Amino acid sequence: MAGPSERLTAGVDLGGTKIQTVVMRGQEVVGSARRETPGTGADAVIATMVDSLKASIAAAGIRTADLAAVGIGSPGTIDLDAGTVGNSPNVHGFETGPVAVGPAVSRALGGVSVRIDNDVRTAVYGEWKCGAGRPYRDLLGVFVGTGVGGGLVLDGELREGHGAAGEIGHTIVKDQGRRCGCGKRGCLEAYAGRQRMEVTARRWQDARGRSTELFRIMRRRGRDRVTSGTIAVALEIGDEVTIRLIDRAVWALGLALANAQNLLDLQAIIVGGGLGDRLGEPFVHRVQAAATPRLHVPERPPVFLPTELGDLGGAVGAAVLAGS
Amino acid sequence: MAGPSERLTAGVDLGGTKIQTVVMRGQEVVGSARRETPGTGADAVIATMVDSLKASIAAAGIRTADLAAVGIGSPGTIDLDAGTVGNSPNVHGFETGPVAVGPAVSRALGGVSVRIDNDVRTAVYGEWKCGAGRPYRDLLGVFVGTGVGGGLVLDGELREGHGAAGEIGHTIVKDQGRRCGCGKRGCLEAYAGRQRMEVTARRWQDARGRSTELFRIMRRRGRDRVTSGTIAVALEIGDEVTIRLIDRAVWALGLALANAQNLLDLQAIIVGGGLGDRLGEPFVHRVQAAATPRLHVPERPPVFLPTELGDLGGAVGAAVLAGS
Repeated sequence: MAGPSERLTAGVDLGGTKIQTVVMRGQEVVGSARRETPGTGADAVIATMVDSLKASIAAAGIRTADLAAVGIGSPGTIDLDAGTVGNSPNVHGFETGPVAVGPAVSRALGGVSVRIDNDVRTAVYGEWKCGAGRPYRDLLGVFVGTGVGGGLVLDGELREGHGAAGEIGHTIVKDQGRRCGCGKRGCLEAYAGRQRMEVTARRWQDARGRSTELFRIMRRRGRDRVTSGTIAVALEIGDEVTIRLIDRAVWALGLALANAQNLLDLQAIIVGGGLGDRLGEPFVHRVQAAATPRLHVPERPPVFLPTELGDLGGAVGAAVLAGS
Repeated sequence: MAGPSERLTAGVDLGGTKIQTVVMRGQEVVGSARRETPGTGADAVIATMVDSLKASIAAAGIRTADLAAVGIGSPGTIDLDAGTVGNSPNVHGFETGPVAVGPAVSRALGGVSVRIDNDVRTAVYGEWKCGAGRPYRDLLGVFVGTGVGGGLVLDGELREGHGAAGEIGHTIVKDQGRRCGCGKRGCLEAYAGRQRMEVTARRWQDARGRSTELFRIMRRRGRDRVTSGTIAVALEIGDEVTIRLIDRAVWALGLALANAQNLLDLQAIIVGGGLGDRLGEPFVHRVQAAATPRLHVPERPPVFLPTELGDLGGAVGAAVLAGS
């Protein structure tokens, strides 16, 4: 039998726009594939996951029967034992649920063991076990994308809580501040999440008459939403509204991460997600610079790091967690 | 030999104004004593600790030789291996240090094993093992006194971090807000710590001409500092400055505790400390009411509890931690 360092596993990161899959030999990616997430219901989404998994398996040059386990990272409400997902508003067919994803993927792949977990937790697990977090026992991963998610590793264990640990996106950085998508006010996500940045940019444009290139760039790129790429381009051309949005995001991340550090005394903070990865190391350095003056023990700061796995992190973590 | 449930241990809580000692049989207090902390140097402080320990031993009706271990909870910088304490500005003779408290107490008590730990951590440990926190595996203890301290139990382990975990008093509730004793601005402690409340009350009185009974009550009680008792009396007579100070403390605690909950998904939050214990359950309820609308998962809130051990908590925790 193969030891853990040679074990073959596969992982899926199920997102609202794309499905990313990998095959891992131990902690190394040996095959990967990506598909657009179909907008035609749960069966189509599951079929596409299986198709992408099979493409990853082919790319790795192995057989489906060689897989020890398959892991799936998914947004929404997960029932680990039943292998179901529900309440996932961004994945077509998964809005209510529960959808029995685990059993369906297992059947399609010859009965392999399938484990479903929260997508942010799998992404943190991936960076911890196979990415930037490898040297550390205590770390926070924060993923800045459409929203802001986070996950904690404390004393060498992925923190479970009762299902909601690591939700740094919904810690409050300004009481009674900007309205967040969750209904509260002043959450980190209201300042650093892409979706709320778009809402804010529209408000500044419409209500305050501040001109911005952001929506013109968006349309020129054939998008109907402000993406990480839209923001990056708007920053590059010096769009003032975008500069201001990112300034506020950096400020909010610095404050929230300093508070997490002051409470938890971590070794490392990893900043990733669609927007975090797109803006990369300079963005991570700005967040670090915003956090540092707010640290209670500034002489022993955490290391601030970009992700190493980028958008493979969720699938890698799902695979490794399933095989553990 | 006695099993853990019958083991005899003693504990000391070393504070700037008092030294509290207990003797425990397993998790039960069987003797206690208290002394004023002398202001005449480290040797006098150590002698008083030993004297109070001997009084507790006598009250318990046991012999010093029966003790399995002695624990000491102390403010300042602790060297666990050397048994030393330093950098403790509020304990006379311990301002710089390091003072070899552990070896000295051990010698005075016939060579018994002595363990020193941080006073806030011992207080959390006491409430967790022997007080309000017994039913829980995940809790935050927050101690509202001269300053605001805190400690975490996560997944059934006292969180160590690298020495500074649980410092909720120095999480920021209002960026660029009130000046804190630590030099930063907007910390929870700047709003909820007694020492900063006193500074704020003086500023409001002197700079803004707001009249307050707080300092008259303080002087009438023969004190030169605003104590928990001073604040409690001022509240009772409806002093508006004090009402406003406590309103802001409740708001700051609610926000900081909601953020800790949102990040950590805890089962319980225990609110104690000199001021927290003095204001008791109504204060804890107000803090809970301030936190609740700021919770990310309001349908699964943590339990908010006052302490059960009150000002014995630190000594109890030190004893039980030393015997564990």
